[in-house]
Amino acid sequence: MDILEAILTRRSIRKFTGEVLNDDDLKTILKAGFYAPSAKNFQPWHFVIVKNSKTLEDISQIHPYAKMVPSAGCCIVVCGDKNDQNEEGFLIEDCSAAIENMLLAAHGIGLGAVWLSMYPISSRSEPIAELLSIPKNLITVGMIAVGYKSEEKTTDDRYKLEKIHFEKW
Amino acid sequence: MDILEAILTRRSIRKFTGEVLNDDDLKTILKAGFYAPSAKNFQPWHFVIVKNSKTLEDISQIHPYAKMVPSAGCCIVVCGDKNDQNEEGFLIEDCSAAIENMLLAAHGIGLGAVWLSMYPISSRSEPIAELLSIPKNLITVGMIAVGYKSEEKTTDDRYKLEKIHFEKW
Repeated sequence: MDILEAILTRRSIRKFTGEVLNDDDLKTILKAGFYAPSAKNFQPWHFVIVKNSKTLEDISQIHPYAKMVPSAGCCIVVCGDKNDQNEEGFLIEDCSAAIENMLLAAHGIGLGAVWLSMYPISSRSEPIAELLSIPKNLITVGMIAVGYKSEEKTTDDRYKLEKIHFEKW
Repeated sequence: MDILEAILTRRSIRKFTGEVLNDDDLKTILKAGFYAPSAKNFQPWHFVIVKNSKTLEDISQIHPYAKMVPSAGCCIVVCGDKNDQNEEGFLIEDCSAAIENMLLAAHGIGLGAVWLSMYPISSRSEPIAELLSIPKNLITVGMIAVGYKSEEKTTDDRYKLEKIHFEKW
């Protein structure tokens, strides 16, 4: 899929067939995450891949907007290592770029995905980190539920002239 | 350009020909930013487009890694409106996704671009906000210098197995 088409047609997908994505597709998506830009090119991200149905169920119980995680069949938890990037704001920016790359890659290969926010909501990130034994030096920034979609969405017009300012505000 | 190719071959470009990108290309890039995902789909971003050579020069004097901005010929300053999204962490995540979309779109149409971090470094964001009269309810998250590239870069292997964790850390 063309890059511009991918960007303009990607939507958050929350309905899935239940079939679990294969290892090749998972690798394609992860690779996209690894190739995101990062401050000073520190690449401070880690990815925890969850496919176990009990763990997916637990995640859906912890996070208020993760009800679709078990039916997606795969959840990618994106964490940033404070030992690699000690400026927390940069860590969030880097991991967000990695998440966006993975969402676009998933869409580009015909899968559905949705970004589930965690940082800075500790009632989401702390129990998820505990569930997955993520060490304290990592910030759990967000998750992606990804799988075979059972809904199609069109895109509304998001281009807003009033949010573009020329030369100054 | 294919979405996966775009993600895997995009690099930070810091050398430019000096020719300024045209309005159609600028619109394509901005549109990509507008189509990023955002928490609750609030789309809290604004974009300040700077092409004025004096202002570009001022930006390059303020930001320690923005020396290439005048030669790029265009700088897109990305801000998030706290009135649209009052959870600051989400605002940073949303604007980061918009920035990544714009970097990919620029690369996809053959232009060069680089992400210049601002948030949470107030010595960068505050004078830039003042220079561009950006109101106090906005967070200046980052900037993109974009233009016609005069360098080509290959991509190193960024896929790191040791940063992938299955089922738990």
